[in-house]
Amino acid sequence: MLDVTGPAEMFGWADIDVELVAAEPGLLSFRNGFRFEVTCSFDQARTYDALWVPGGDPQALSDIIADPDQTYLGFLRAQARTTDRWICSVCEGAMLLAAAGLLDGYRATTHWAFIPCFAERFPKVAVADGFPRFVEDGDDRGKRLTGGGISSGLDEALRLIALLKGPKAAAEAQQSTQYYPDPPVRSAIPHQLTCPLPPPKPRAA
Amino acid sequence: MLDVTGPAEMFGWADIDVELVAAEPGLLSFRNGFRFEVTCSFDQARTYDALWVPGGDPQALSDIIADPDQTYLGFLRAQARTTDRWICSVCEGAMLLAAAGLLDGYRATTHWAFIPCFAERFPKVAVADGFPRFVEDGDDRGKRLTGGGISSGLDEALRLIALLKGPKAAAEAQQSTQYYPDPPVRSAIPHQLTCPLPPPKPRAA
Repeated sequence: MLDVTGPAEMFGWADIDVELVAAEPGLLSFRNGFRFEVTCSFDQARTYDALWVPGGDPQALSDIIADPDQTYLGFLRAQARTTDRWICSVCEGAMLLAAAGLLDGYRATTHWAFIPCFAERFPKVAVADGFPRFVEDGDDRGKRLTGGGISSGLDEALRLIALLKGPKAAAEAQQSTQYYPDPPVRSAIPHQLTCPLPPPKPRAA
Repeated sequence: MLDVTGPAEMFGWADIDVELVAAEPGLLSFRNGFRFEVTCSFDQARTYDALWVPGGDPQALSDIIADPDQTYLGFLRAQARTTDRWICSVCEGAMLLAAAGLLDGYRATTHWAFIPCFAERFPKVAVADGFPRFVEDGDDRGKRLTGGGISSGLDEALRLIALLKGPKAAAEAQQSTQYYPDPPVRSAIPHQLTCPLPPPKPRAA
């Protein structure tokens, strides 16, 4: 949920319009059951200045990647054909960009638990060292911005605002949202050794 | 939107059930138009371990405060009758707690722009110095946790998790959401002199 709503809040304070797009619009559910409305389908989607791909339930991601119709990955590839827009992900959304081939040869990151998935499943991705909040990369094939896990999207969204509208707009969004974070706990990022993506669900014949 | 969804995300990773409650359930809209579903009315609300009051459109807050039926403020007062639960706000949600008298004599904070509202409108509130992420206070009348603006709710939610389920649960929520923030811009909090709450809308006779 925060992969979508945190950045959307930031973009709103920077007067950037956000359109929610889904393969099947309707009243959808985040992982925790919070239901929200999406009215725009992949077919109705316009071309945007930036595409933001959230993470989600790992089983759902595996099923999207294994979909023989490539409905979701095909949409991502079509959106990435215009090379001057930012193709972004946060959290395990990077798995979908990687599966679509859109991170091949680019430096990228993802949620800490999914970092091993790059080497195991998508070895053409140049994995950024450590656990950065976000990684920017680009060449003549296009521009990429990938974020770490969930809350990384807030930092990443401020960077995207700066890229699209300049640093003053990003500073104003920081002020409006009072984003001067100071977590009251001090944990360490665990060391994950293997990719937690499950096998895709068997499909009906 | 982030006042609600950021903390809800944190609570979800700590296995804390969240129920969205509204005066009039249905498909509601956040300020930016993002529509989401609320199924529980004030009448149907149970007693919870914590009540979390978000901020919102300042005009809507003024109208809630001026409501002669005190629908919203009466709900808050009823929920606060049990003294062992945490009564929390984030952002200008503190204006509603203050208007209900629930912050009288307590140390509290709110979004930086609404800090002057305490002195102007709710002088019995003991305003915390500066712009803390959150402020805890309590006595035999009850327990209060008030947050700063919007994104402060993430830090405050981790604190509430620690209060309800212990520091280990809070550390795990920080890990799951990869909440090790590092904003890529460095702005300062503006100096607000007057309360930005507008007058309530005139009501039909």
